[in-house]
Amino acid sequence: MSRIILGIDPGSRITGYGVIREEKHRLEYLACGVIKVFDKATFADRLLEIHNGITEVIAKFQPQEMAIEDIFVAINPRSALKLGHARGVLLLAGKIAGLTIHEYTPRTVKQTVTGYGQAEKAQMQQTVRALLKLSATPSQDAADALGVAICHAHHFIQTAV
Amino acid sequence: MSRIILGIDPGSRITGYGVIREEKHRLEYLACGVIKVFDKATFADRLLEIHNGITEVIAKFQPQEMAIEDIFVAINPRSALKLGHARGVLLLAGKIAGLTIHEYTPRTVKQTVTGYGQAEKAQMQQTVRALLKLSATPSQDAADALGVAICHAHHFIQTAV
Repeated sequence: MSRIILGIDPGSRITGYGVIREEKHRLEYLACGVIKVFDKATFADRLLEIHNGITEVIAKFQPQEMAIEDIFVAINPRSALKLGHARGVLLLAGKIAGLTIHEYTPRTVKQTVTGYGQAEKAQMQQTVRALLKLSATPSQDAADALGVAICHAHHFIQTAV
Repeated sequence: MSRIILGIDPGSRITGYGVIREEKHRLEYLACGVIKVFDKATFADRLLEIHNGITEVIAKFQPQEMAIEDIFVAINPRSALKLGHARGVLLLAGKIAGLTIHEYTPRTVKQTVTGYGQAEKAQMQQTVRALLKLSATPSQDAADALGVAICHAHHFIQTAV
């Protein structure tokens, strides 16, 4: 049985997404990219853009599961509040479309994908490229999103075994 | 020309809302209440409840404008992140329904409505009750929401004069 996983690296300006298919413990790359909002738009307009952007991705690839980065690091309250808004409309898009939602800390994603919880961005990009046999290196945000999707696929396999 | 204003006091567990009509500088109370989410639901389910709850209020009263509390106080990053999620899905509901969005700090709301920027919750409840000629005292969250709506109506009148 195959399943399609949407990985998300949330951000109030740039949100990365990555879509993979998992079948019999094999991972297949489907898509990745970023939703970059227009800087001069109002904050509420940006939230609508983020929400509509991820809703389009969901409609196109029909994933059953959403894996999204959880944030535990001590960012300042103002940044946390902004990021929360973006993350809120992303989770909402997943719930509206009926996806199951799974959250992983950046540390767990790095540990699971690269084997090292403190991995640099470049290391995540290279590992994701190798694991999914990509012909080019994805951008940092897209690679992080694919990383969350891979992390979730891996956790699921471990649990299922 | 009359207009209907939806005031919101956002929260990740309890969101207050208040609806008023402004016509020729006169304010009329239409409704108020709270959207209280089920504690045992997952966080994403709660966001869906909050979003659906406010969307119902918008559908019922057809406001043209949303006035919502902005948060500048130094709450901790974890609380800010949670509150941001709730605020995000509330703003989104407003944008989807085509409302204009207006943000006011708690201080501005208190100053405008009660004349004192550090007003206590009880003072806001009493002032809102008096201004809107309510037969009963609204709950704290509902009163705060009506306060934001009144604050917005007042600012608009000032600008328009």
